[in-house]
Amino acid sequence: MRNIKLIIEYDGTSYHGWQSQINAVAIQDVVKEAIKRLTGEAVDLTGSSRTDAGVHAYGQTANFFTESAIPADKFSRALNSILPEDIVIRESCEASRDFHSRYAAKGKRYRYIVYNSPSRSALMRNRAFHVPQRLDMELMEKAAGHFIGKHNFSAFRASDSSVTTTIRTITHACLIKREEIIEFNIEGDGFLYNMVRIISGTLVEVGMGRVLHSDIPGIIESGDRRRAGRTAPPQGLYLMKVFY
Amino acid sequence: MRNIKLIIEYDGTSYHGWQSQINAVAIQDVVKEAIKRLTGEAVDLTGSSRTDAGVHAYGQTANFFTESAIPADKFSRALNSILPEDIVIRESCEASRDFHSRYAAKGKRYRYIVYNSPSRSALMRNRAFHVPQRLDMELMEKAAGHFIGKHNFSAFRASDSSVTTTIRTITHACLIKREEIIEFNIEGDGFLYNMVRIISGTLVEVGMGRVLHSDIPGIIESGDRRRAGRTAPPQGLYLMKVFY
Repeated sequence: MRNIKLIIEYDGTSYHGWQSQINAVAIQDVVKEAIKRLTGEAVDLTGSSRTDAGVHAYGQTANFFTESAIPADKFSRALNSILPEDIVIRESCEASRDFHSRYAAKGKRYRYIVYNSPSRSALMRNRAFHVPQRLDMELMEKAAGHFIGKHNFSAFRASDSSVTTTIRTITHACLIKREEIIEFNIEGDGFLYNMVRIISGTLVEVGMGRVLHSDIPGIIESGDRRRAGRTAPPQGLYLMKVFY
Repeated sequence: MRNIKLIIEYDGTSYHGWQSQINAVAIQDVVKEAIKRLTGEAVDLTGSSRTDAGVHAYGQTANFFTESAIPADKFSRALNSILPEDIVIRESCEASRDFHSRYAAKGKRYRYIVYNSPSRSALMRNRAFHVPQRLDMELMEKAAGHFIGKHNFSAFRASDSSVTTTIRTITHACLIKREEIIEFNIEGDGFLYNMVRIISGTLVEVGMGRVLHSDIPGIIESGDRRRAGRTAPPQGLYLMKVFY
């Protein structure tokens, strides 16, 4: 049995997220179905992150075990010939037997895109969070800096999530603006459920002047979800890369 | 009668171009229909450029005459509430009676996007020209520089086009690369039919090493369409701005 690692890009617009669900098409199911058509095997496909409905990925990582004789690096092209246009295997390679795309992940990079313009965008309509009010980049940049470091992020996770620890280390959090697009790039050793979307929503409220950037350390320390900003919508979020 | 000027963004993926056609949905028709629903008038809607099927716009400009009492700047919001999500009026304002969005145009800015990566892209699938071979940016930048200035561009126009003069002045032609995206921005006093797509296709061939950048001046001078590169596909092209 070989363990095959896939790096997957997808446009999440038409799917109910990564994870298989009853009565809804998930990206995981579509990729599993393509593997079945290619190898005849009904595999377990383990993804690094359970991205929500509407969330996109440039670098979702997944792995599966196969008896197939197809060379590992040929899986990408073979699967791409079966997959729909909105899901692409960017890379396939053989991993060690004990590689597990979720448990072995050492870090992740996400991007959140805000479209900041009075009118909505036709081209970015499923690719960004539309914020019509003018956002103050300087305030948002100051706010982003407060997230860097090792913190207890329980104020920045969806209330229904259960994990053993809510301590995470953020190594990188920076903003770039170009034309109407504000791009927020964040990297860390792991993220709680909805954490990037809640941080992004909080940054937007800082940019609007509703939350003071200097209040961020106190909000983190409070551990109180109600003090952080609203969860930004899924279509602005991109899973960029998983580090191993 | 007031003359209303619109600045229009659209995702061209689902349309057969700007210009009304028999048996195909054009962007012009959709906007005219929205104006009719709003004002009750069947207007003539003049666009600055007849973008082809699949071509996108951030700043297509159009104008129409109306008897309606709606304030000029309110047209954008009112039309956006009727228009589909892939067409957005970014701005509406009143223009002078003699303003004609095509004849009054003094210049245009286009962008052409190449997705340069071995595998195709899920997220850029209708938004860029996918080129799997690695492109040499330095060669492409040198080639782009040769287009700047006043030239006879008859080697860079679709053979079926008829215009009085093929002389155009290019004021700006530059490339930016970020991750897998190569963005080519070009500005000039006007463009012949398919000119940006043929220049972009030629730049890609330079990047592949099939055409020498130093041959560009000779290709321009020859006026021979067969010596220029292939026409790059429509989905990479964006009409960014029309200058008046």
